[in-house]
Amino acid sequence: MSDNSFGRLLRLTTFGESHGPAIGCVLDGLPPGIAISPEDFRADLERRATGRSRHTSQRREADEVEILSGVYEGVTTGTPVALLIRNTDARSKDYAAIAERFRPGHADYTYQQKYGHRDPRGGGRSSARETTMRVAAGVIAKKWLAERHGVRVRACVVQIGDIVPRAFGWNGVDDNPFCWPDPGQIGELEAFLDSLRKSGDSVGAKVRCSATGVPPGWGAPVYGKLDAEIAAAMMSINAVKGVEIGAGFAAVGQFGTRHRDAITPEGFLSNHAGGILGGISSGQDIEVGIAFKPTSSLRLPVASVDVRGEPVEVVTTGRHDPCVGLRAPPICEAMLALVLMDHALRHRAQCADVFQPTPRVPSSP
Amino acid sequence: MSDNSFGRLLRLTTFGESHGPAIGCVLDGLPPGIAISPEDFRADLERRATGRSRHTSQRREADEVEILSGVYEGVTTGTPVALLIRNTDARSKDYAAIAERFRPGHADYTYQQKYGHRDPRGGGRSSARETTMRVAAGVIAKKWLAERHGVRVRACVVQIGDIVPRAFGWNGVDDNPFCWPDPGQIGELEAFLDSLRKSGDSVGAKVRCSATGVPPGWGAPVYGKLDAEIAAAMMSINAVKGVEIGAGFAAVGQFGTRHRDAITPEGFLSNHAGGILGGISSGQDIEVGIAFKPTSSLRLPVASVDVRGEPVEVVTTGRHDPCVGLRAPPICEAMLALVLMDHALRHRAQCADVFQPTPRVPSSP
Amino acid sequence: MSDNSFGRLLRLTTFGESHGPAIGCVLDGLPPGIAISPEDFRADLERRATGRSRHTSQRREADEVEILSGVYEGVTTGTPVALLIRNTDARSKDYAAIAERFRPGHADYTYQQKYGHRDPRGGGRSSARETTMRVAAGVIAKKWLAERHGVRVRACVVQIGDIVPRAFGWNGVDDNPFCWPDPGQIGELEAFLDSLRKSGDSVGAKVRCSATGVPPGWGAPVYGKLDAEIAAAMMSINAVKGVEIGAGFAAVGQFGTRHRDAITPEGFLSNHAGGILGGISSGQDIEVGIAFKPTSSLRLPVASVDVRGEPVEVVTTGRHDPCVGLRAPPICEAMLALVLMDHALRHRAQCADVFQPTPRVPSSP
Amino acid sequence: MSDNSFGRLLRLTTFGESHGPAIGCVLDGLPPGIAISPEDFRADLERRATGRSRHTSQRREADEVEILSGVYEGVTTGTPVALLIRNTDARSKDYAAIAERFRPGHADYTYQQKYGHRDPRGGGRSSARETTMRVAAGVIAKKWLAERHGVRVRACVVQIGDIVPRAFGWNGVDDNPFCWPDPGQIGELEAFLDSLRKSGDSVGAKVRCSATGVPPGWGAPVYGKLDAEIAAAMMSINAVKGVEIGAGFAAVGQFGTRHRDAITPEGFLSNHAGGILGGISSGQDIEVGIAFKPTSSLRLPVASVDVRGEPVEVVTTGRHDPCVGLRAPPICEAMLALVLMDHALRHRAQCADVFQPTPRVPSSP
Repeated sequence: MSDNSFGRLLRLTTFGESHGPAIGCVLDGLPPGIAISPEDFRADLERRATGRSRHTSQRREADEVEILSGVYEGVTTGTPVALLIRNTDARSKDYAAIAERFRPGHADYTYQQKYGHRDPRGGGRSSARETTMRVAAGVIAKKWLAERHGVRVRACVVQIGDIVPRAFGWNGVDDNPFCWPDPGQIGELEAFLDSLRKSGDSVGAKVRCSATGVPPGWGAPVYGKLDAEIAAAMMSINAVKGVEIGAGFAAVGQFGTRHRDAITPEGFLSNHAGGILGGISSGQDIEVGIAFKPTSSLRLPVASVDVRGEPVEVVTTGRHDPCVGLRAPPICEAMLALVLMDHALRHRAQCADVFQPTPRVPSSP
Repeated sequence: MSDNSFGRLLRLTTFGESHGPAIGCVLDGLPPGIAISPEDFRADLERRATGRSRHTSQRREADEVEILSGVYEGVTTGTPVALLIRNTDARSKDYAAIAERFRPGHADYTYQQKYGHRDPRGGGRSSARETTMRVAAGVIAKKWLAERHGVRVRACVVQIGDIVPRAFGWNGVDDNPFCWPDPGQIGELEAFLDSLRKSGDSVGAKVRCSATGVPPGWGAPVYGKLDAEIAAAMMSINAVKGVEIGAGFAAVGQFGTRHRDAITPEGFLSNHAGGILGGISSGQDIEVGIAFKPTSSLRLPVASVDVRGEPVEVVTTGRHDPCVGLRAPPICEAMLALVLMDHALRHRAQCADVFQPTPRVPSSP
Repeated sequence: MSDNSFGRLLRLTTFGESHGPAIGCVLDGLPPGIAISPEDFRADLERRATGRSRHTSQRREADEVEILSGVYEGVTTGTPVALLIRNTDARSKDYAAIAERFRPGHADYTYQQKYGHRDPRGGGRSSARETTMRVAAGVIAKKWLAERHGVRVRACVVQIGDIVPRAFGWNGVDDNPFCWPDPGQIGELEAFLDSLRKSGDSVGAKVRCSATGVPPGWGAPVYGKLDAEIAAAMMSINAVKGVEIGAGFAAVGQFGTRHRDAITPEGFLSNHAGGILGGISSGQDIEVGIAFKPTSSLRLPVASVDVRGEPVEVVTTGRHDPCVGLRAPPICEAMLALVLMDHALRHRAQCADVFQPTPRVPSSP
Repeated sequence: MSDNSFGRLLRLTTFGESHGPAIGCVLDGLPPGIAISPEDFRADLERRATGRSRHTSQRREADEVEILSGVYEGVTTGTPVALLIRNTDARSKDYAAIAERFRPGHADYTYQQKYGHRDPRGGGRSSARETTMRVAAGVIAKKWLAERHGVRVRACVVQIGDIVPRAFGWNGVDDNPFCWPDPGQIGELEAFLDSLRKSGDSVGAKVRCSATGVPPGWGAPVYGKLDAEIAAAMMSINAVKGVEIGAGFAAVGQFGTRHRDAITPEGFLSNHAGGILGGISSGQDIEVGIAFKPTSSLRLPVASVDVRGEPVEVVTTGRHDPCVGLRAPPICEAMLALVLMDHALRHRAQCADVFQPTPRVPSSP
């Protein structure tokens, strides 16, 4: 058991604090023969990185990934792949002032209660910097899923505050700083976030994460359900407060005749299930919704207590995002890819012998 | 690794099919010295049981729990506690007609794709009958949490279709067949469910599950987060499509100044976090919201395919619920209790030596 | 984590006390499509059972296995297989006298220290009766290994006290009550065990357990090594005090030029490695040696203390074996089979994609 | 599940190849508040290191440990501790000649069969260099066991070839290059190893590893037995072919009246059990014996095949040890310490509530 590990057959273990010497991970269970180079990690780390636009915080790090093990002559050997990123831009002095006080909405108070002391520099282990290693590991999983199974994992932002897309298209998502699927709303979003930055406040966001091409049969009853592990994966991301599959919370208001997805020889007629039935993939697109809270690190003061229990006022002067959800899409993709690859391996372990393939229903008519 | 097991230090493994000889579980890792008798399981199993009112399906089973091991002279010994319930009211003939066709919205198709064949009787392993053993195991966890730590775990229904409570009180929840916290709406709910039964349709529901008295410090970064494991626990329950903690999806529309819960020496001033910060309990109430889909087992026909891929029409004639969420509260309580007890044990394993206790903030002012 | 579970992808969880209502197990992770019937368990349970000759203890139980789940129409479905055996011949009164005193060489004292109390009837959870479920689970693993991979797992006794075989042949092993590979020594062994029974003493034994037909590539570096998991599997059997692979402890006295097994295109020239190199099977026979201690349950008195720490004399009057190792071969076979099947599944999970098969060396020239 | 991880609550994950950029580990589950500095690792790494005398191979590396995470202001925070050692003296050219041929007695052939290709430089992942990280992690475990529980873990060599000590004393063990407990035999051992170096051959060794001060109650039935996990821990070390507890294989030739350790109010009268009964510590010294094979890397030629299956002759010209067991004592200590610390944490998780302490028998009279 390791609380800092994730996955069963494909096992990710991360380590490192925001302002310690480095962050890193060990990814164990990778099949041999996957081509990996340090360049593979760049694009997604850049998508996640701070500083890409004025709408995200200005910490800038090279985030150069060093491959420490498990790769020989450019391909995985089947032994653990360890990745390392040195922390080069850790301005610890920014955080010294709040070492003795608990930032509301952060893990300061709970870490102190649990462990008796804590690394206060930049949030230490509770910093979102840890997600860098999720993204790096996810790059490998996404690559394997795409090459081996034709699975594509994508994510975009589908709500910022009360703003929701009026149209939806994956195509333009990478062309705007909000990972937004409706290009007609970019101006509106820019104005909203500029006003937040001005006021010093922050806002929540909702991310949609999808996987297409997943074959039926991945997942497992009853505690190893694909959706149960997706839920854990997403909820383990910093700032996440909710996870839903398919219709999700909207299913509460649906009638059964509407929710159940009829099947025809040409395919399913709808996808309220979000591609998962009984914890096992149906062949339809996997659809996940993830709620991110607004960051609590604001220059606007808030009441709190210090480590002695005395009342204090907390003001965060460091670099922070008005909407942390904007950087979340590659993290969500990584977590979904890791869960899917893990289940792909588990499925072939248990069911490689299955003798009587059932006619497969297309994912849609 | 066992896909049919849950928990780390307190490990629940369930087995059994809806219409097989029996269902059962093994609960390993229980501390010695907990008093357990077969009678302890009755109340919660009755709460979960079918047939308690005309609003739930009419399958009626004694659900007598036999304790097979791990208890000597009435108290746990520290060895695995195995529980068994014989299936006595399994009318397999009800299901024979649909053995060769896939019920939309059920796991029939995905089990067949995964395993090549399946036990079609009553849904086999994918039946909600499995949750009986969760409830039984949860009884033990709730007892230990209450006696050892003063923790109380409760659940109620807070949405049926589009109906939400106009007032909230835990007191009357056990006095109506809807586990509803607003006694003034019982007539309205009865009328709604009667209309559903008449039309042959079903509807979703949302459950709220809370734990009071949880001390700060339970949970663990970063993949063993308390909320991540609660999310997995809840999403593993049949028919669940969404899980949220505290403000949950509402946090998307909140500003940071509103969401972050200010702290005073007298306590937290709000609880949008739902009692968990950085994956660790804060001492405030743990608040979880769970979305249940409407059942797909309806006497109203729906299009589907059979095991040969041919188009068929599916009509479910068995006993089913218009709103499966009504039986969910004890199941949600059980899962929350199992996660909490597991984390209580993990916390004392790692942190029993902690030397400098921090002044504890009351859970509310 | 469950201390009463074994295996990673094929996960055995056992429960039950010697004189409780029943013993049982849950075997999770089995591939679908394996034919299983209650009759399959008979032969090996009989081999393990008490009472088969005057050289083993006289407790006689039907040991009828009930299959509670996971099998439909005679074949596994991929869901957990639960097996149950009721305890029908538990004469608790035999043990009442020693409930308050600790039998030297047994787990009485350590269970009491660990848990504060214990089930004293027949040793409770520490009784070798638990091994019944290992044997039952092993029957399924051996069947799958034989049918799917042509692997054969066998065991025999190769030392009783100071007596070792003068010749070795697998053929006669099942034809004598000592599982002995040299038919010329049966009279000598009978005389020795009769003398032990007369004197009231007991003696140790060494078991050899082999697997033929294992393909190269099963196992994994570095903590999941095939031999590491075999060692844990065997050492977890009651009364085992040592495990060795291939040359084992004899390797201490060997020179490197002798120990290393030369390879030719026609095969390996020797098998000091016992079929495992670097934790991975080489294709040669897996060879395991297991040391069983003499039972401590004797009618000859021994000094001990009671639960209050006072000196007492312990005499065991129940039914016991002069040489418990004689019943161990099917247990050892079961554990080896479970480890091998687990690794077979793990291997195909990780390495099913391997692209460049290496020419395979025959297991022997 | 991670094949490169060890332990349940205290979880060690190692990574790295002999001649890759670095080797490292992540140790998760450490209690907060343990003082750790890079200097702590020096003594044991030096004990394990190559080049300390002419009797071990001449590879010399600084083995400087960098602490990457989990330590703040000199003490552990409860988050994962990652350790890293750069490989500075990796002369890959030494191994180029054998990249295409399988060294008998090594993992070359089995890695190639399992993974389809392998990192041949210095044995890659199968190199004993991995044990460096075990030793480093073991330093932390030994420190915690000593400071928190007064447990002392030690190891020495008790057989080289056919030579065994004529006397036994822990005191002189660290004063000779053979970790030998009988100072009167050092000359004899030097002559023997010099003759081996001259002839180009190698020999096996047996290590004894002991823990004193372990309280009764650590360990768990039935697959989490303390001895089962010790067996796995030791068998996972490179070159180990056998593990025994207490009397071990000698128990096969013992009578029950001799083997069972009588108990008096003043203590146990013997320790054939090796400090473990029913998988749980008894309070006596834990005694483990471990068999190391002779290294197969010799300059004397041996028959083998290459990756195409063609016959070749293998000669190892690199730096190697005539008796690899001589460097094993700190590795064995580390593994025993990791198992003990893991069980200490597990014990207090499950049994911290135990209400009725039993009078404790002293470990010896």
